[in-house]
Parts: sequence; structure tokens; C-alpha cells
Amino acid sequence: MMNFDIPDHLVDYLRELDDFIDAQILPLQMQDDNNRFFDHRREHARTDWDRGGLPREEWEALLLEAKRRADAAGHFRFAAPKAYGGRDGTNLEMAIIREHLAARGLGLHNDLQNEHSIVGNNVGLLLMIHYGTAEQKAEWIDDLSESRRYFTVGITESAHGSDATHMETTATHTGDTWTINGEKSWNTGIHRASHILVVARTSGNAGDAEGLTAFLVPTAARGFRIEEMLWTFNMPTDHGRVSLTDVEVPESCVFGGEGRALQVVQHFFNENLIRQAASSLGAAQYCIDASVQYALQRAPFGKPLSRNQGIQFPLVELQTQAEMLRALLHKTAWQMDTYGAFAVSDKVSMCNFVANRLCCEAADQAMQVHGGLGYSRHAPFEHIYRHHRRYRITEGTEEIQKRRVAGYMFGFMDRKAPKGVRTGAG
Amino acid sequence: MMNFDIPDHLVDYLRELDDFIDAQILPLQMQDDNNRFFDHRREHARTDWDRGGLPREEWEALLLEAKRRADAAGHFRFAAPKAYGGRDGTNLEMAIIREHLAARGLGLHNDLQNEHSIVGNNVGLLLMIHYGTAEQKAEWIDDLSESRRYFTVGITESAHGSDATHMETTATHTGDTWTINGEKSWNTGIHRASHILVVARTSGNAGDAEGLTAFLVPTAARGFRIEEMLWTFNMPTDHGRVSLTDVEVPESCVFGGEGRALQVVQHFFNENLIRQAASSLGAAQYCIDASVQYALQRAPFGKPLSRNQGIQFPLVELQTQAEMLRALLHKTAWQMDTYGAFAVSDKVSMCNFVANRLCCEAADQAMQVHGGLGYSRHAPFEHIYRHHRRYRITEGTEEIQKRRVAGYMFGFMDRKAPKGVRTGAG
Amino acid sequence: MMNFDIPDHLVDYLRELDDFIDAQILPLQMQDDNNRFFDHRREHARTDWDRGGLPREEWEALLLEAKRRADAAGHFRFAAPKAYGGRDGTNLEMAIIREHLAARGLGLHNDLQNEHSIVGNNVGLLLMIHYGTAEQKAEWIDDLSESRRYFTVGITESAHGSDATHMETTATHTGDTWTINGEKSWNTGIHRASHILVVARTSGNAGDAEGLTAFLVPTAARGFRIEEMLWTFNMPTDHGRVSLTDVEVPESCVFGGEGRALQVVQHFFNENLIRQAASSLGAAQYCIDASVQYALQRAPFGKPLSRNQGIQFPLVELQTQAEMLRALLHKTAWQMDTYGAFAVSDKVSMCNFVANRLCCEAADQAMQVHGGLGYSRHAPFEHIYRHHRRYRITEGTEEIQKRRVAGYMFGFMDRKAPKGVRTGAG
Amino acid sequence: MMNFDIPDHLVDYLRELDDFIDAQILPLQMQDDNNRFFDHRREHARTDWDRGGLPREEWEALLLEAKRRADAAGHFRFAAPKAYGGRDGTNLEMAIIREHLAARGLGLHNDLQNEHSIVGNNVGLLLMIHYGTAEQKAEWIDDLSESRRYFTVGITESAHGSDATHMETTATHTGDTWTINGEKSWNTGIHRASHILVVARTSGNAGDAEGLTAFLVPTAARGFRIEEMLWTFNMPTDHGRVSLTDVEVPESCVFGGEGRALQVVQHFFNENLIRQAASSLGAAQYCIDASVQYALQRAPFGKPLSRNQGIQFPLVELQTQAEMLRALLHKTAWQMDTYGAFAVSDKVSMCNFVANRLCCEAADQAMQVHGGLGYSRHAPFEHIYRHHRRYRITEGTEEIQKRRVAGYMFGFMDRKAPKGVRTGAG
Repeated sequence: MMNFDIPDHLVDYLRELDDFIDAQILPLQMQDDNNRFFDHRREHARTDWDRGGLPREEWEALLLEAKRRADAAGHFRFAAPKAYGGRDGTNLEMAIIREHLAARGLGLHNDLQNEHSIVGNNVGLLLMIHYGTAEQKAEWIDDLSESRRYFTVGITESAHGSDATHMETTATHTGDTWTINGEKSWNTGIHRASHILVVARTSGNAGDAEGLTAFLVPTAARGFRIEEMLWTFNMPTDHGRVSLTDVEVPESCVFGGEGRALQVVQHFFNENLIRQAASSLGAAQYCIDASVQYALQRAPFGKPLSRNQGIQFPLVELQTQAEMLRALLHKTAWQMDTYGAFAVSDKVSMCNFVANRLCCEAADQAMQVHGGLGYSRHAPFEHIYRHHRRYRITEGTEEIQKRRVAGYMFGFMDRKAPKGVRTGAG
Repeated sequence: MMNFDIPDHLVDYLRELDDFIDAQILPLQMQDDNNRFFDHRREHARTDWDRGGLPREEWEALLLEAKRRADAAGHFRFAAPKAYGGRDGTNLEMAIIREHLAARGLGLHNDLQNEHSIVGNNVGLLLMIHYGTAEQKAEWIDDLSESRRYFTVGITESAHGSDATHMETTATHTGDTWTINGEKSWNTGIHRASHILVVARTSGNAGDAEGLTAFLVPTAARGFRIEEMLWTFNMPTDHGRVSLTDVEVPESCVFGGEGRALQVVQHFFNENLIRQAASSLGAAQYCIDASVQYALQRAPFGKPLSRNQGIQFPLVELQTQAEMLRALLHKTAWQMDTYGAFAVSDKVSMCNFVANRLCCEAADQAMQVHGGLGYSRHAPFEHIYRHHRRYRITEGTEEIQKRRVAGYMFGFMDRKAPKGVRTGAG
Repeated sequence: MMNFDIPDHLVDYLRELDDFIDAQILPLQMQDDNNRFFDHRREHARTDWDRGGLPREEWEALLLEAKRRADAAGHFRFAAPKAYGGRDGTNLEMAIIREHLAARGLGLHNDLQNEHSIVGNNVGLLLMIHYGTAEQKAEWIDDLSESRRYFTVGITESAHGSDATHMETTATHTGDTWTINGEKSWNTGIHRASHILVVARTSGNAGDAEGLTAFLVPTAARGFRIEEMLWTFNMPTDHGRVSLTDVEVPESCVFGGEGRALQVVQHFFNENLIRQAASSLGAAQYCIDASVQYALQRAPFGKPLSRNQGIQFPLVELQTQAEMLRALLHKTAWQMDTYGAFAVSDKVSMCNFVANRLCCEAADQAMQVHGGLGYSRHAPFEHIYRHHRRYRITEGTEEIQKRRVAGYMFGFMDRKAPKGVRTGAG
Repeated sequence: MMNFDIPDHLVDYLRELDDFIDAQILPLQMQDDNNRFFDHRREHARTDWDRGGLPREEWEALLLEAKRRADAAGHFRFAAPKAYGGRDGTNLEMAIIREHLAARGLGLHNDLQNEHSIVGNNVGLLLMIHYGTAEQKAEWIDDLSESRRYFTVGITESAHGSDATHMETTATHTGDTWTINGEKSWNTGIHRASHILVVARTSGNAGDAEGLTAFLVPTAARGFRIEEMLWTFNMPTDHGRVSLTDVEVPESCVFGGEGRALQVVQHFFNENLIRQAASSLGAAQYCIDASVQYALQRAPFGKPLSRNQGIQFPLVELQTQAEMLRALLHKTAWQMDTYGAFAVSDKVSMCNFVANRLCCEAADQAMQVHGGLGYSRHAPFEHIYRHHRRYRITEGTEEIQKRRVAGYMFGFMDRKAPKGVRTGAG
């Protein structure tokens, strides 16, 4: 029997999360002027402009404390396997939770800018569980679980953008030692990462899905260097451009098997896309709701803005898109849970590009409805816009998502999984 | 537990319908040049231009024969109660069936123009079951069930369009006799209807939801006159403008109770809207699918059109909208079945205006992809466009649907049901 | 000095045209029920459904009489050289006149469907003047000037659509005789044409701009056959699909020189595009104006529709686009007159695709604003939509126009003229 | 005779400006790390975060030096009357110059954020010339001409937004002294202004166009207070919210006559709107051009992005809009010069809302085409987006502009000038 009602246990859990936020997160946000990280001063309060635009240490410390509280309360590892302290959260559950948290608006419970959330999306941990050698697991699992330490991922290169099968970075080996040379950009969290998971070509030719290998390289390795931090629309930045010059690592640093890097880095591709979509949907809903409320109160010419169809109709269009997206997103997440993460890749891409675009449009419309206030930093919409604008580019640009959908529609793609990923693994 | 899979019994039933079409409907369509009603000659073959633009008799006879076969095979009354030979079809089932039939394209199984279908949407029968007096039921049920006879509905007036609470038509009574005066337009099927269900003001003031009464008036009554047939974008026409001049009917013609006309005529408002939406979705999907196939084959400059993103991307956008709409439409129909037909009126309006617009856009894009052929009547897209363009206006224009959604979003509407309808009745 | 005012002499001439229409054309339209060709019966009145969907003879006779009156009054040949009885009308003048005539709405002065107008766009005559041999001119000029006889153009083939350099039709010669084989579609006016200007490959390879030759072939020639008339969105049809089987013509039928067909058929490419754009702009303006008037009067819920921003704002957007387009169209036509017809080909394509799309959007919005009436044939908008929808496909689809603009923007096209046309000739 | 060519003297002047920029402005921008105000560090370099988010002094000093050089070279006062050292620049000239400067991209010659330009739009000076008393002129003209001192304008109030006829601020007088009470927001440049031109109601009722009076109030006056600086999407901020508590000023502070404030503050309304539009058009063109160049070089999957219609077509649409807008903008500016600044108010509003929206869309598309780089601050598009997004709200939101256009289309506005402005004055 078809059933579209969100199950009671999840409704209850959302309430539990709200209670937890009220009890433990909001008070933390409100003390010691911590709210400076969320009010109109947020960008400056978070950004250490004179240290490369990096996040300020107080800011990152605050996020860590929120995570710690969430982990203590049993929320942070929701998506992780039970064996690792998690709750085996499904894609559907995570989607609904992510949307719910984002729909609350800006706050310490779920910061838009750096993917911080009281319910974590700890891909590093999941990758380690899935692909780590026994030795690697022993070294990493605990640290990753408790956010004590993490590695960043190094795939993209300046000259190649969206195509992960073309890269200049190479690794060659002599005996047990691999020597890596190359450059990577957009390495998120590089400023505090102990390691970087570098993807390098070890065999084959540019464009081949096979022949790419992932290496867990210590950022302290000789020959590794952060060249610059990339300043973005939203600040602070935690995205770096790095270089590797004759960096030597032992065989034990190979991660996921020689030549199988593409499978590793794309394993959670769809999971990430659907969660990102859910966050964007939640943020879009927040913008719509706030605009409705404002339009009901604001009356510049003597009658409320809400009486103007010029205000109403764009919000109706946005709400309609949000409802349609929500329905497809739940369905898609459920299908991923039921039939495999790569079973409905086209729908995942659809949800992703629609959600991210919708969120930008909703934030933009919220700015417009709020007028001067909307354009100011005293309202959250410019921040939401700035953050979610990124999602239309990262993790596959909107054009890449559409190309993927077209691939299925026109039969150019005969596999459900990305290049290099063997289905069934999802 | 949430479940988004279409249930097996319904999947099986769709296959049964397909088999029935192949066995009994397609052969009928293909014999005796009956296909003239569906190929490029369709409009002329159907239209008796010199008799007011009415449907030709051969055309209506053919539709009736198809209905008869469908009823004999047990399909036609799918939506009707079991007690009346039906299968108690739900809104969800009807939506999925309607979409499926429309997605097959033009044909005798489901003609777009006059709501003909092998699975009927026999609102007249359902209204009679719900509101008829014992006497009325005795007179009408069999005829309605077997499509031998029907009544048309007369609400709209030229000067009032979308607002059913303003009308010039009045009825006054002396003893047991009601005298009706007024004019109605857009009376569908008036040319063959034995009766017209006329809504007239019997008390109260313009704008009141109460005080309107429905009368089952014989079209043979003295003082009743079809003034003209309204020629529309798609032809033939079965929409008339009629006048009633001192038409006298007995008390037994009151239908649904004095003063309760709005409830009667709007009882199946949401059911109609969601089925219309499902048809539009199916037709949209047909246009998309046909365009994909054509773009794969057509190669005017030496490479298939399908290789151009200028062709791909608009179709990707349409398919994405179709998937989102499908998800919301199923959810909404299920909610209507589960929580009442007026429980999610805002979502019904969303589905409706999106579906009808999407179908027009998909037909338009199909024309564009098919180039000269697309513009011709040798392809079905102009016909699909012309038919579905109507749905953006009738049953509440797109603007009316948006206004309804806005009503719920901004709190202007505090009831789920339309004016005059008591909830719970749905 | 820049000057954006329409010159007085042209303003005066528009008034003169209006007076002429009132005095000589409208009376003709209103007599003998001729208005049946323009009121809700127009399509049927014009179409001889049982003779292949061709225009009825009475209809074509009426158009001819209107042309005759216009020629007698000195208007019809406005665009022709003075030496041929014309007024040397410029592109700018023709654009302004075409827009003006279309902005008056449907009527005998300027019928949308078959390019009929009291101010003609007699391309056949212009081509003959430009490319005809002395012998051809002697035979044709008078007949073409007075619309007694004409030839249709045969370029497009079913399999090749927009690309005029790929075709199956070939011509080979033995001595002085050319033998032509092939098929052509979308030959406008073929039903009454005495000749067809067939483009055939006489040398070179598919895709070459050179090696195509035009032949003036009598439609009475042995081996020439109209295979079918193509029924289109708007009826009647004057578009045929024809075949040529071993059609033999003498050398004197070569038109414009061997191998130079592309130059010939594209000579007036930009002139046609800009006039088509002007007509669409005029028709768009008509739809906007009519909608404004209707919205001011129609008050379904007690207040005029014009008070709703849901009605106002879409019309504001359309009017804004119309004003921008008008400004660019005048500028572009002036630049064509001043610097050559191929000097601003990118702007010509811009004007063309925007105008045709805008007209469709304006007609669609007019339908929506007019509600049920708008959907009917009792209002002209469905007819306007149906006609102008064609312009988004013929004379180069919207996609082809965009590709042309892209060609200039990205430097893929290094010439201003189409393939095969030597600049300077414009 | 119509003429659409930009006159030679203006073409020459644009070249002169370019030469001046190369010779005197660019070198200044490039010395002493001044380019930090324009490269990826721009926002931080300009913003004194800890002093209310105000512009840093070094930044403002640099802008002043650029202005000084421009004035010395005879450019800065281009728009001012010759009697005041200007060149009597017309609206058409200013529009073309503004567009030209913005089309060069970010730089010291024309900073987007605070309306700084080497060719100034010194509205304060123009207002003083037009409305100042002899005494006021004597005090102000020189200072304003040489940018030594200026006054800010105080109209908008938090609760009333776009409607200048509703305000809480009042002024009452006793003898020769006026006492002002109220609050104003969005006072641009308040941090360095010596005076604020406060509009207060001195008679009449809320909503009346008459009865508002402007006062030139020293910011040093007792009772005047900057309450806060409003942080905006783009930083630094020079927009303050101020309060006036029993501020007393003498009669000589009345500016433009008692009760005539609306005329004063709206005198240059259309001039400002058309210049703003021209700037947005130039910036849009810059974004398009940069995207075309990038797409030609960038080849992530082995072939240039420019080969994808998914990249081409959106840029074609933008360029088409830009060409149409440019044509209408020149026409409109010329009509303002020829027939008066309020002669074509509807066209001014059209140009304004289209231009500002187009610029946002072009910047957004440029981000998308540039991918990760586009999202970063290492490219200028996020800055352009952030600045021009403001224009869709300030000087009349997009909705207000559309309402104004609708006013003329539907006949709700019977005057060309805004409330309170007597035509002819323009």
C-alpha cells in the first residue's frame, strides 16, 4: 500500500531535536555574545580576514562544542551504523531531518556555511568504514566518530573542474613508496585537516575511469603546501588550493585499492546530493515562510503587502515548487533506501538542481519582499542566498546535473552509477 | 511505513487496460477510416461546421461504441460505487489511470477533447447518487450509468466568469412551481443533454454562498433556448450559451435541496481538478517522450538533434517538472482518499495549475523540437496544446488556483472547502 | 545627431493607410458576409476541407480584390523600386508599416495567415529584378508586379529541415537540358503557383554552400507532382510536399546562375526576418492593448480585473518587452538601410526570435486575461497565436536564430552574410 | 531623419575617457597595493568592520583622489551646467558614458558600490543650483562642486518604505524656529555628511503629496543622532538610521520652499533612474563579455565550454536583452532631453527595472559559466551581483516600477510626473 505520511517515530524525533535545540543549543548561541556569529555581524565575526580569510578559532570552537553536545545527546551520529554509535539513519530520514533543521533558519543547530549540523553528514567516517584497511580503521575510526580529526578530499584541479577523470596529478611508485606530484583546488577544510585524500593517476590515460588511485596523505608531509585560500561569495573560506611536489608516501596510504579512486570518491555521491537538496529545500521553505509573515505585517501604502498579487503570486509559485520538490525528494530518498543509492540517479540529480535553484530563488524573492531590510544583513536572506548559490556549482554544477538527467532520458548513459562505480555497491 | 511504489494490483490493471485497448479499441479506431478522427484530418472529421460547429454524429456514435465496449469489459464505471456496477475507484487510482491513458497519446481510448475515456469520470452519476431524491434516482441512475442520457451543468454566466456566487439567473416560486429566468454560458454537452442543472439565486444577495438552488430543467421546457454554440480554440464545440425565459418547473426539479446549489456543484470540485491534472501530466509525458525519440533520429545538420543541449535542456526541465508533479499528484490524491477530498485543497490547486501549464509547455516544446512537422497537424502536438490550453482557464483559471493557494498561505481562507461546501462531506 | 522620432512623412503615410482601409478595405470586408472570413467562423470559411484543406476560392478572390484596390491606390508596391511602380520603401519604413498594420488586429487589410497585406512583401518580384535574365524579366515582371502569377520556392526537404546545404534533390545536364529529381516540402502557395523555384545540387558535396543551382520549373512539367498538402496548426494550408521525377527543363530555367542558388534564396533573408518581426511586434501590441481594455471593463468579482497585479504585471512585462523590441527593431532596420542588409545579421536574428516569441506570449496572455472568451474563436487571440507560432519555426527556427547570434558572439561565424552570399550584395 | 548612430563627438569622448583612465587612474589603482580594494580582498580592504562597518578612511581617500584627478582633467563635472564648470551633459550622453564606464568592469574609474565615478552624478549640486536660496547657494556651491562637503537625503522611514507621502517625521515652527522630530533610515553617506536634507510633514495629512517640507539640518545639531549603520549585502555600508529629537533649525534651513519637499526630492528621479539603468546595462555587458571569453578558453571535458548550447543559449538570451535595452535606453534618454524628463516616465521605469534585473541575471550567469572561480571572490561577478541587487530595491523597487508602468498602461496615473512634481519643471 502506498503511504505518504511521515512516520510517527520520525515526527517524534523531529520534536526531540527541536527540544534538544531549545535546551542545549540555543542557550549556547545566546551566551557570551555568541549570537554575533549569526546576526548582521556574522560574516566578520566568523572570518579572520588577516589570516587568509580562514574561520576564526572562536567560531570553530563554538561549532565543535555544539557538535559535542549533539553527540552526547545521541544525535550527531544519527546516519552512522549502529556499530559505530549511530542509528543507521536512512536517506529518507536524513532528508527529512536536514530539511527540518534548515527550515528553522540560521542558527548554531545547523549552520549553512560549512555543513555543520547537530545531525552530522560524516562522510569521512562512512568512507573509512567502507574502504579503510584494518590498519587504517584502527587509526581513524574513533577520531572521525568524535570529530577530533578529519581528512579533506582532493579531486578537483583548476584546469579540469567538473571532470574527475582528467587530472594532472600523478603518482608513481618505486618499491613500497609512492611519489605524488600535482595540484588540487577547492579542498574543503584543508586548514585543519590532518590528511588529504589525494586522487592521482597511477595508470591509464586522461578520461579513463580506471587507473586513478586515492592516497591518504598527511598535510604535514614534505612537499605538501597550501598555496592559497580561495575567497568565496560567502566567507570565511575553508577551501584551499594545494600543491604536492615529490610527496612520498608508503603503500599503506593507498585508500580503497589501487586504481579504484573514482569508486571511492563517488560512493556517497548521490547521498550527498540528496542531503544537499533537502537542506536547500528547508532553507527555501524558511525564506517563503518569513516572506509570508512579513507581507502580512508590512503596509507601506496603508494596506498589507500581502494583499498584492504582485507579492502573493511569486510566493505561490515558490511554495508550489517546494511542495512538488518535497514529494519527489521523499520518494527519491525512499527509492535509494529501497533499491540502492544508484537506482534513481536521474531523480537525485533532478532533486539536487531544482532544490538549489529554488533556494536561491526563494532567498532572492525574500530579499525583494523585505525591501531594504531584505537587502540588509539584518535579515538572513543574503546569507542564505550566498551559501546556497554555491550548491548550484559544487558537487556537479546545475549543467552537469542536467547533462546527467539527459544522459538517462536520451540513453547516453547506460549505467545508473557514475563512471568507475560498480553498482550494487551503493 | 512510507511507500512510494504503485501497488501491484494497479500495475496489473494498467496492463489489463492496455490489453483491452489493443484488443477492442484500437481495432475499432482503425476500421472504416475511423482513424480520420485522429489523424491530421481530425478536427474537420469531427466537426459539423455547418451545424453550429457541433460534433458530427458519426464521431459521437464512435465514442459511444467505445464507451459501450469499455463498460461491457468492466472498465467504464471504475470510479463508481460497487453498488452501481463500479469498482469504488479511489482518487489515487483514477489519477494513475488517467495519466496512463493520456500518456499513450491521441486515440479512441481516451480522447482529449471531450473528456471521453474508457475509464469514465461520470460526475453526473456520482452527483445523482449523492444528492438525488429517491424519485430522481429512480428516474436517472440507470440512464446515467449506461450513458444513455445525461444532464449538463449551468453555472457560469457571461458577465461573471469565475465567481459562482454572483449571477443574474433567478428562480421564484408560486405554490409548487418555480419560475426561472436568466442566461448561462459554457454549458458543456448542451446539444445532446436531456436536462440542464441550472443554478439560480432563490434568496440572499449577490456574493452570498447560501441562497443558490439547483434545478434539473428539461431542455425541452418551454422558454429554454440554446442561443449559440461557442466556437473554441479546439473544435468541434459542445459548449453552448443558453437562455431561460419564464421557464416553469415543479418543486420536484430542485436538486440537492433549496439553497444548497454551491455545495452540489462544487462537491466534486477537487476530484475533477486532480483528474484533470493527471490527464495533463500524462499528455505532457507523451509530448516529452515523443520529442526524445524524434530528437534521437532527426539529424538535419548531420548529427542527431539530441546531441544539442539546446534541445536536451528544455526537455530535461520538462521531465524534471513532470517527475516532481507526479510525486505531488500521487501524494495529494492519496491524501484526498485518506483524509477527505477537501483536506488538501491547496495542493489540489497546485497540481492542477502546474499540470495544465506543464502540458501546454511540453506540447509547445514538442512542436519546437519537431520543427515543421511539429507545427503541422500530421503530429498531435498542436491538438494537445489546443485542448489542454483550455484547462488553464476552465474549472478555475490558473489565476484562480493561485489565489486559492495564496488564500491558504496567507490565511485569507480559513476553510478547506469552497464557499458553501460543508467539510466532512467530501 | 541621434534622432528617434518617426519622421513626419511616415506618420502621415500611416494615417493615409488608415484612411484607405476605412474607405476601401473595411467596406469590402463588411459586405456580402465577407466578415465570415474574420469572425469566429474564419477557419472554416477559408478552408476547403474536402479539397486537401486548400484555401477556398472565394477567400483567395477576396484577398486578390483587396490587393487590387491597394495597388490602384498606390500602396501595394510600396517596397518595390520606383522603376517598377513602387516607392523604394526602406526596411525601416516597411518595418513601421508592417507593425502598424498588424497592430490594428485581424482584417482584410493585413491577413496574418498567408502574408497578405495591402502593402506587399513581394519577394518574388524583387528576386526577379535582382537575378532574372533579360528573358526571364520580360516574361515575369509584369505578372509578378500585378500578382497575376507567381512562383513558389522549393528549398526545404523533409529529411533536412533547417540546413539548406544538405539536400537529396539533384540536377544533371545533358547538352542544354537539365534533369531534376527529388522531393521538396513546405512549398508555400504551390496550389496556385505556375512555377516552383527548385534548388538542386548540381556539383559539390552535401554541406557545401557552393554547387547548388536554382531552376524555375513549371508546375505543369511532366514528372512534377504535388504529393500532399501539409495541414498545419492554422488552416487552410497552402504548403505542399512535391516530388520531381526526371523533370526536364532547358538551360534557360536556371535562375541566378549555376551554383549560386544559396545566394539567391538567401538574398532577402534578413529583409524577410525583420518584416516578420515587425508583424509579430504589431500583433503582440494588439494583444496587449486588447487585454488592457478588457481588464478595465471585466469585473467578475465586483472589481475590475485591471486592479489585480496578477493581471497587471504580466502585461507590464509584455509591454516592456514590446518597447525594447520596437527600439531595437527600428535601429536594426535603419542600420540595414544605412550599412547593408547583412551588416547587423545578429541583431536581425535577435529581433526575429524575440518578436515571434513575444507575440505568442502576448496572444497566450490575452487568452488568459479574456478567460473563456479568450479561449474561444469569438476573440482573435487563438488565431493570432496559431499563426505566429509558425514564425518560431519557419525562416529558421528560434534555435537556428540563437545559433546564429551565438555564432557572432563566440566568433564561430566570421562573415555577416549566410553561407554562399557574398556581402556587399545586400 | 531618424539616426541611431552614436555621434562622433561622443565616441571621441569615450576614447578620451579611456585614455585618461589608462594615464591617470589605473596607475593610481595599481600603486601602493591600492588594488587590494578591487581584488579578492576588496570587501575587507574597504570595510572598517569594527567601526560600524563604515568605509575605511584609506579607501575614501583614494576615491577622493581619483575624483580630484578627474575634475582636474575636466571630466568629473561633465553633467553640471557650464556656468558651474560642467559641460551641460545630456541624459543621453550621461547614459552612454555610464554604460561605457561600467562595461570596463571593476576599477577605480567607476566603483560600483558607492556610485563613485570619474564622471560624477552630483545630484546635490544640481539640487542646490535648482532650489537653493541665494544664501544657500553662496554657502554650498563651491563645496559641492569640488566634493569638499555634501549633504545626505533623509526621506525613507523604517515603517513606510517606498511611500514618501507617509511619514512620522514632523516639523513645527515657533517664530523663526522649526522643531523637527522623527526618524529616517537608509541615509546614504551619513557618516561624513555635514548636513542631512530631512523631509518632514509640516501640514496636511499622511498620504498627501503637499505639506512636506525639506530642511537642511546640520548633522552636528543637538538632538540629531546616528542610531546605527545598516549592514548590507555589499559592504562597507554608508547607510545609516538616524533620529531627530527636538532638533531646532532656523527658517533659513528650509530648502526648496515650504510644503514642496516632494518636488525637490523627486526632481531628478527619472535622471537617476536612467543613469542607474545605464550603469546596470554596462555591468551586464561586462559579465556577458567575460563569460564569452572564459567559455572560449575553458575546456573541462576536452572541448571548450563555448561549444555547448547549454552555455551559449543563456548568454544569447542575455545579449539579446542587452541589445534591446540599450536601444530603448538611448531612445528614452533622448526623449527626456528632447521632451522633458517626465515626458516618458513609463519608459524610464521600464529601462530601470529591466536593466537592474538583467545585470543580476548576467552576473549570476557569469558565476555559473565560471564555475568554482565564478563563485569565488577572485572573479568580480559576486561583487557585481551584490551591488546591482540593491538597485532592484532602492530608488523604487522593481514592483514599484512595474506599478508605475501599469499606472500609465491602465490609465490610473494621469500625470507624467510623480506626486507633487509640477511638470514642465523637468
